[in-house]
Amino acid sequence: MKHGQISSKELSDFIRERATIEEAYSRSMTKLAKTASNCSQLGTFAPVWDVFKQSTEKLAACHMELVRKLQELIKEVQKYVEEQAKNHKKTKEEVASTLEAVQNIQSVSQALQKSKENYINKTLEQERMRKEGATQRDLDKAGLKVKKATETYKSYVEKYANAKTEFEQRMTETAQKFQGIEEEHVLRMQEIIHSYCQSVEETHIQIGEVQEEFVKNMENTSVESLIQKLAESKGTGKERPGNTVKSLTHDDPPFSRCTFWEKNTFCLQLFLYCIFFLF
Amino acid sequence: MKHGQISSKELSDFIRERATIEEAYSRSMTKLAKTASNCSQLGTFAPVWDVFKQSTEKLAACHMELVRKLQELIKEVQKYVEEQAKNHKKTKEEVASTLEAVQNIQSVSQALQKSKENYINKTLEQERMRKEGATQRDLDKAGLKVKKATETYKSYVEKYANAKTEFEQRMTETAQKFQGIEEEHVLRMQEIIHSYCQSVEETHIQIGEVQEEFVKNMENTSVESLIQKLAESKGTGKERPGNTVKSLTHDDPPFSRCTFWEKNTFCLQLFLYCIFFLF
Repeated sequence: MKHGQISSKELSDFIRERATIEEAYSRSMTKLAKTASNCSQLGTFAPVWDVFKQSTEKLAACHMELVRKLQELIKEVQKYVEEQAKNHKKTKEEVASTLEAVQNIQSVSQALQKSKENYINKTLEQERMRKEGATQRDLDKAGLKVKKATETYKSYVEKYANAKTEFEQRMTETAQKFQGIEEEHVLRMQEIIHSYCQSVEETHIQIGEVQEEFVKNMENTSVESLIQKLAESKGTGKERPGNTVKSLTHDDPPFSRCTFWEKNTFCLQLFLYCIFFLF
Repeated sequence: MKHGQISSKELSDFIRERATIEEAYSRSMTKLAKTASNCSQLGTFAPVWDVFKQSTEKLAACHMELVRKLQELIKEVQKYVEEQAKNHKKTKEEVASTLEAVQNIQSVSQALQKSKENYINKTLEQERMRKEGATQRDLDKAGLKVKKATETYKSYVEKYANAKTEFEQRMTETAQKFQGIEEEHVLRMQEIIHSYCQSVEETHIQIGEVQEEFVKNMENTSVESLIQKLAESKGTGKERPGNTVKSLTHDDPPFSRCTFWEKNTFCLQLFLYCIFFLF
């Protein structure tokens, strides 16, 4: 029963350690999501980092959810530990009479042994005196001692028989009570473990869903769509710039009043020049 | 393209960080398994810790396997990063003529603008002189200037037309080349991500199997079997001790020559007494 109490504390510690591990993992995942969000927002690949960020944040959330469930479970285990302590105390009081029966058979057994040895000694002493031809008076004395030893021995044999019956009866009851307690204990532990398994299982399923979603999002992010996105964000227009050369008149305006297309071509040229320069 | 190189390094870093997280989790799991193995070997619940230990060790192994796969993947990404750098260098050389075309249209455009302004100025000057009644000589000089400006303007218009054609042609080719490079880049990145997903998926399945095995082992560990195990390891026999009281003869042996059952009962009593004493 003592080990039963130890085992429930150990189970509580085990679950707590698991919760700590999951929490560390969750926090690391949150940090990883931040890494993804800090990745370059430029370039064709940039939109993909959002998918990484969301997915990683969801994974972090799954593991944190497991932490929460395990912490709830630990509270239950704690309750059981307290309950166990109370029950053991109560049981100790209930089996006090069995303890008495054990102590009794112990002491009676010792006394029986002593009285037996005493009986043997006295009997042997009598025999010895007879062989050595002792006086009738001494033989009578010895005879009395043997008689007394015999009576003592007999009484302890009877006492022992009673003590044994009492012991066996109480022991059987108590052993059954103890077995019931152990069975109850193991059942409770198994219930706790079942809860533990369920929580871990649920988290596992959620993680699977997050990963499936990630794969799907990646599949939906086609090469074409990314190129398109880049072109739309960086492009200057869908029409090829028209001919900027107009007929020569004195009304030809200065540059600030150039057409949109003339400006566009110039901007495009500047932009591309800059690209090349950077490249 | 530059951002393309940044993105592949970032992907490498992301995978590396994920591998680090998984490794930390794996090591924590190994430590947790050790906790389970250090749990009390006494009591009815004790054999259950073996199930915890084995299961936790297997979980640690699953995650370490993922670490190994991710580290292999990082090597692949590194190769791609080097490959990318080489290709970019090569491409830079290949599009040198486009760079020239860009620089050309830039300078011709500026020259065109200048010549246009010059033409306008000279024309306006001529007009102004005519209105102010300048001498014929001055008018002739102005006329020559206008003629020269007109010719310069015309030639730049032509040069610009050529430069523009050249530019558009080279730019189209180069833009297509760049698009091809981006498409190739995104495809490679998606392949890497696909490998990443596969590794994570495989680990997820393995973890699921380990958890199923754990649940099954727990279900197979019945309360009865645990009680039985405890009884077998702690018990002193399956038979009830016989009657230790024998008929009284002078051949009654001393304790050391007591029967097995007599000794057994005494040991059992001592044992139970000890239990109660400790309890």
